[in-house]
Amino acid sequence: MSIAPNFSIVTLGVANVSRSAEFYRALGWEQVRSESDGITWFRTSGTWLGLYGYDLLAQDAAVEPVAQSALPAYRGITLAINLPTEADVDAAFEVAAAAGAPIIKAAHRAEWGGYSGYFTDPDGNLWELCFNPGFPIDAAGRIDIPKG
Amino acid sequence: MSIAPNFSIVTLGVANVSRSAEFYRALGWEQVRSESDGITWFRTSGTWLGLYGYDLLAQDAAVEPVAQSALPAYRGITLAINLPTEADVDAAFEVAAAAGAPIIKAAHRAEWGGYSGYFTDPDGNLWELCFNPGFPIDAAGRIDIPKG
Repeated sequence: MSIAPNFSIVTLGVANVSRSAEFYRALGWEQVRSESDGITWFRTSGTWLGLYGYDLLAQDAAVEPVAQSALPAYRGITLAINLPTEADVDAAFEVAAAAGAPIIKAAHRAEWGGYSGYFTDPDGNLWELCFNPGFPIDAAGRIDIPKG
Repeated sequence: MSIAPNFSIVTLGVANVSRSAEFYRALGWEQVRSESDGITWFRTSGTWLGLYGYDLLAQDAAVEPVAQSALPAYRGITLAINLPTEADVDAAFEVAAAAGAPIIKAAHRAEWGGYSGYFTDPDGNLWELCFNPGFPIDAAGRIDIPKG
């Protein structure tokens, strides 16, 4: 007995779907279906990114939609984008900043040998931009994590 | 100027990496590298799933690690697993329940034509199990979201 590991969609509950869609478009990401439907999706090399109303997403999951302003900056989860070189990470931070993203932690060399920093989207979701020399990236933009 | 949409890893900050790794193994997912390194990864059809210490993940992002007990059940984000049939969703809920997952919302037919419910992992992260007849699933377990 197992669950097929079809990790298909990460959905972000956002205060304003149009504003968030504009932000992810400004990163250069491909939007599929308009946000006029109330929900919209962005294609990635891995799991799709969904954008949906903050309260509506809570309602869908049948949990209490605490006020978004009550959410701490750290929500116990981070989203990562791996890029092939340190220069790519630097260039990506320029794109994120131009899109209006707060840079939470500037890129720096990490003790594990990589190069990494964080920005947030308009709702405070933490995105890491990362170069990890140990995780090769294929032509489709997917990483491999080799067995140790 | 754009950022390659290499959405590579979702990292969950968890109270106990070993406990969480045991949970995801119980779903039948493939663990790559042992949690003895402090961080561990699970392979999925899309973005990798990382498990890391709750406080350490906050520290990595340079944000305040509010107490995990202070995190609301709803954190403005959900993770979804798409499966080919309603029966697959029912079977997956049995696997999740056997792994000890609280079933937050039992699977039911949704007004948009699919079949969906939610469980949580040991740290309260919301996972949706979903059959969506409009999102075909390929042999690798990846969905497509056709243009509307």
